[in-house]
Amino acid sequence: MTLPSKTSILDRIAAPSDLRDVPDRDLPQLADEVRAEMIEAVSRTGGHLGAGLGVVELTIAIHKVFNTPDDRLIFDVGHQCYPHKILTGRRERMTTLRQENGLSGFTRRAESEYDPFGAGHSSTSISAGLGMAVASELSGTPRNIISVIGDGAMSAGMAFEALNNAGAIGARQIVILNDNDMSIARPTGALSAYLARLASGRTYLEVRDFSRRLTSYLGRSIDRAISRAVGHVRGFVTGGTLFEELGFYHIGPIDGHSFDHLLPVLRNARDNARGPVLIHVVTQKGKGYAPAEAAADKCHAVSRFDVVTGHQAKAKPNAPSYTSVFAKGLIEEARHDDKIVAVTAAMPAGTGLDKFEDIFPKRCFDVGIAEQHAVTFAAGLATEGMKPFCALYSTFLQRGYDQVVHDVAIQGLPVRFPIDRAGFVGADGPTHAGSFDTTYLSTLPGFVVMAAADEAELMHMVRTAAAYDDGPISFRYPRGEGVGIELPARGEILEIGKGRIVAEGSKVALLSFGTRLAECREAATVLSAAGLSTTVADARFAKPLDHDLIRQLAAHHEVLVTIEEGSAGGFGAHVVQFLANEGLLDSGLRVRQMVLPDVWMEQAKPEVMYKKAGLDRDGIVNTVFRALGHSGISTGTIG
Amino acid sequence: MTLPSKTSILDRIAAPSDLRDVPDRDLPQLADEVRAEMIEAVSRTGGHLGAGLGVVELTIAIHKVFNTPDDRLIFDVGHQCYPHKILTGRRERMTTLRQENGLSGFTRRAESEYDPFGAGHSSTSISAGLGMAVASELSGTPRNIISVIGDGAMSAGMAFEALNNAGAIGARQIVILNDNDMSIARPTGALSAYLARLASGRTYLEVRDFSRRLTSYLGRSIDRAISRAVGHVRGFVTGGTLFEELGFYHIGPIDGHSFDHLLPVLRNARDNARGPVLIHVVTQKGKGYAPAEAAADKCHAVSRFDVVTGHQAKAKPNAPSYTSVFAKGLIEEARHDDKIVAVTAAMPAGTGLDKFEDIFPKRCFDVGIAEQHAVTFAAGLATEGMKPFCALYSTFLQRGYDQVVHDVAIQGLPVRFPIDRAGFVGADGPTHAGSFDTTYLSTLPGFVVMAAADEAELMHMVRTAAAYDDGPISFRYPRGEGVGIELPARGEILEIGKGRIVAEGSKVALLSFGTRLAECREAATVLSAAGLSTTVADARFAKPLDHDLIRQLAAHHEVLVTIEEGSAGGFGAHVVQFLANEGLLDSGLRVRQMVLPDVWMEQAKPEVMYKKAGLDRDGIVNTVFRALGHSGISTGTIG
Repeated sequence: MTLPSKTSILDRIAAPSDLRDVPDRDLPQLADEVRAEMIEAVSRTGGHLGAGLGVVELTIAIHKVFNTPDDRLIFDVGHQCYPHKILTGRRERMTTLRQENGLSGFTRRAESEYDPFGAGHSSTSISAGLGMAVASELSGTPRNIISVIGDGAMSAGMAFEALNNAGAIGARQIVILNDNDMSIARPTGALSAYLARLASGRTYLEVRDFSRRLTSYLGRSIDRAISRAVGHVRGFVTGGTLFEELGFYHIGPIDGHSFDHLLPVLRNARDNARGPVLIHVVTQKGKGYAPAEAAADKCHAVSRFDVVTGHQAKAKPNAPSYTSVFAKGLIEEARHDDKIVAVTAAMPAGTGLDKFEDIFPKRCFDVGIAEQHAVTFAAGLATEGMKPFCALYSTFLQRGYDQVVHDVAIQGLPVRFPIDRAGFVGADGPTHAGSFDTTYLSTLPGFVVMAAADEAELMHMVRTAAAYDDGPISFRYPRGEGVGIELPARGEILEIGKGRIVAEGSKVALLSFGTRLAECREAATVLSAAGLSTTVADARFAKPLDHDLIRQLAAHHEVLVTIEEGSAGGFGAHVVQFLANEGLLDSGLRVRQMVLPDVWMEQAKPEVMYKKAGLDRDGIVNTVFRALGHSGISTGTIG
Repeated sequence: MTLPSKTSILDRIAAPSDLRDVPDRDLPQLADEVRAEMIEAVSRTGGHLGAGLGVVELTIAIHKVFNTPDDRLIFDVGHQCYPHKILTGRRERMTTLRQENGLSGFTRRAESEYDPFGAGHSSTSISAGLGMAVASELSGTPRNIISVIGDGAMSAGMAFEALNNAGAIGARQIVILNDNDMSIARPTGALSAYLARLASGRTYLEVRDFSRRLTSYLGRSIDRAISRAVGHVRGFVTGGTLFEELGFYHIGPIDGHSFDHLLPVLRNARDNARGPVLIHVVTQKGKGYAPAEAAADKCHAVSRFDVVTGHQAKAKPNAPSYTSVFAKGLIEEARHDDKIVAVTAAMPAGTGLDKFEDIFPKRCFDVGIAEQHAVTFAAGLATEGMKPFCALYSTFLQRGYDQVVHDVAIQGLPVRFPIDRAGFVGADGPTHAGSFDTTYLSTLPGFVVMAAADEAELMHMVRTAAAYDDGPISFRYPRGEGVGIELPARGEILEIGKGRIVAEGSKVALLSFGTRLAECREAATVLSAAGLSTTVADARFAKPLDHDLIRQLAAHHEVLVTIEEGSAGGFGAHVVQFLANEGLLDSGLRVRQMVLPDVWMEQAKPEVMYKKAGLDRDGIVNTVFRALGHSGISTGTIG
């Protein structure tokens, strides 16, 4: 633990009510202590560093001014919530961040009454806040509702929908725009440029004019604190801003690292706001920690690191990541075909497209946090003969689901969907798990749905998708490293709808979709050693299904098990529907479906999660044993 | 057909190239002819009337000025595309609108080269247009891209995402904001109020200032035509509008019914625009047809009608619609529980919530075309103990899928989802079919997923959802009339996860989820008459499944068939996965899954669609016969 002398104020704060007793003049010291505490904790656990460092003063100021948890404080996304956790009774557990049975890396209702709304995905906080604000008015229980949202998150359509509706409803709600000119990458889009113009002061009005308008709006005399603050603020914009056109009273930009700016503005909003207010706060991501301030990504997400140097302990990889293999494959295809273009929604590094952009800067489009637009933008590109690869994480593709259905699939447009982070994601937990893509895509007529079993297969699927021009096509691959298989210089074109047999047996058939193939092979070794000759097949395609392969497996085995790292209703469901409707189950084939368990699986190391889900070697072996009436071997399976 | 004398100009137009030969001065007469032609056609077919009437002049002006189809004209949603169809070679087929094998009620790529992007759902046109604009630049084939989008559609987040990205990319693209202060209902939201302020002229700058700025932006001398136009226009806004802040050059508002305004502005944009341009056009929905102008909904969607009086031929209903029964049930529950509130996304009449709002105006929220926000707003309401019913069509709930997963389901919040238009929707075709909801919801841990078998069951499910407070819950019901069953004054609370047996047999079991129950009963009659004693069960719940019921059906029958009006991967998939993994298939139970066929089913009368899908009585009977090795009876099944 840290020495008491270093955290003399923080040590007295068990909850925000204690913070309210700290005099304003001591808050800068508290900010230093919180910042040091947070750096210390994240240096040991890894996690999201830059965003939290940027909002230390803002978080303290909010808890100082507002009566949390009765007042509701909603952090958008949640990357920036670590200082909040330190101040709301979770300080001692900070070293368990993002670990099994530890604190979540995001806000979480189940974790604390100070987390009134959980997050992980961006741009939800204004909608949630409006719901709370309306509930407050309907139920006659006045309270403050504060949503803290970053400028990157503000560019998503959902945030605009919420502003538009909030401005019309007019409920009393405070939105704090935390403008650090950063999301995970530097934000793109016209809104970002607009905010930069605001923050640069070119449109600031006179302080006197601000005072006059504020007085008129708030309908009360301005108190001394706000008068003093006005002298400090960099500027206030009060006329004709985008937010005001949408019905918000707009204050700012103000300096988000200055309590002299934050406290009076927040107190005034608390005491005098009668409708929706947007406070534009300018902060610096990574503030107060030199290595973070110096880093290009402001230490957005880090592994464990040395506090003094900021040097991160990166484990030496055993194999290239699937993400990097995808990038390599796509770059190779793009060299052969100048129609290939790439689309990312604010995740150039996460998807590997930063490498693609280095080589093909005019053929790579980062549309910002805007998955809906990303998908239909790609559809528009496809209508003109371009070959768009719309690379999203599985969990974020959910945001563009209607566009996938309506703009891509119904029209049969050849948009390619590389789906990264498919399956478990470890420390990021259930909000980021890629569980549902196979289910929600395989049900769409005309879609081709693939999963890579290893990184060489991923190369093949990139090339197959590039070559396939008859309709939409997707391929999923997990977070993390490949299995270490040798990579081809260029992938091969796979036959659409054809799987492959990787090991031949006679009694048991394991039909895998995706990277669980390795565990199937291991399970086959165990089963064969136990006298159960086992076939292992890699389906490659969930749609169209390889009917010949399935018939063959059904005809020549007693047990057929499907295995996938996805939810119910997906690959296995389509296989079994085919078997059922073809009458291939009528003679007593023992068919079993292994899917993700029907629970929101909590964060843990992936191997722990696989074991709990029963999707490891032993889980597969046991499923076969049980199907044959044998007793199983011991496991930790749930669900 | 109409008399030649009435359509002397239109008769000469086989394609837009012919229109380009018509002198400007004759265009008003052509507009009259197109308007009369359209009214005549829709009076016979029914369909979307008001939106098309409002854009007759705009559509003519665009085809006159731009070189379609090489220039790309994208209509958002597509409700307004009938004049476009008349002018693009589809005039003779207008009387087949929305009928089997006839013209689509929307734009459709497969239908015409003049439809470069299909629609049905709103707010996609700017994204698609940006894709085309970027493709045009990348491939070095300059062309104009014009997206026509309504003010209601502009309020959706997806449109904002597209504007934000288009402003940043800066590709040459024309967006025409068709501002008629209407979507399907009157639009809500702060943006709508903002546009009204713009259109009212309060922020107009001087004409001279406009000219100066336009000259400066376009970099060329203004031609005479635009100079003349400037004298006519109601005003131009050129400084600091929301659209300009997002990087668009903003022209307007101009009068969308005046060719003197439209033509010079469009020509100037065509000849001189170098980046994204937004032209704000004010039109009147229903323009030029007195009954439409007088109607509150401007004859948005009509059944067949008398051209002179505008009187619509409404078939006398045999039973109340599911929509009205839902409204009745919800109103009844809301009388008992003041925590019940309702949320709709721009469909107050379509969902029946207009009736709810009449009685509980403060408890009903129309958030505009903003499904993402609607879902998370409801989640926010639920966190504070309100009981939100977020009523959406199945096809539009797709827009809020990520919010359902991330904000509602992961947090286990008790948001109620009444899902209207579940299953086939007839004339609106594949873009509006409610095919996927059971699949994409049943895969979410902790969700309760119901389907009503008839309108009395719907009453029960409304009450069950109101009473259930442990997590998210949905209930689906189709478009159209109920079966005519007597309605209870108030529904009963159903036991969660329990189905019911409605007819007992011994050899065949039909397990229905939803309104196909009636066809199952009919099929059972046929089967029993053929010596196959048949049990009929109503599952009520796809999640949680009634394991006892399924075990019982499996244990006591030779054949078990699941029936649902939904896609693969849904109810039947969960039933069969349970059966498989419990070993209940190992002894040769003949299980079959009846789902929607794996095609995008085209518009037709619902009974035709059911027959094609095999989801009618004969289809069910045949499935059973085939399962038992009998030859079937003749059907028109596909897929």
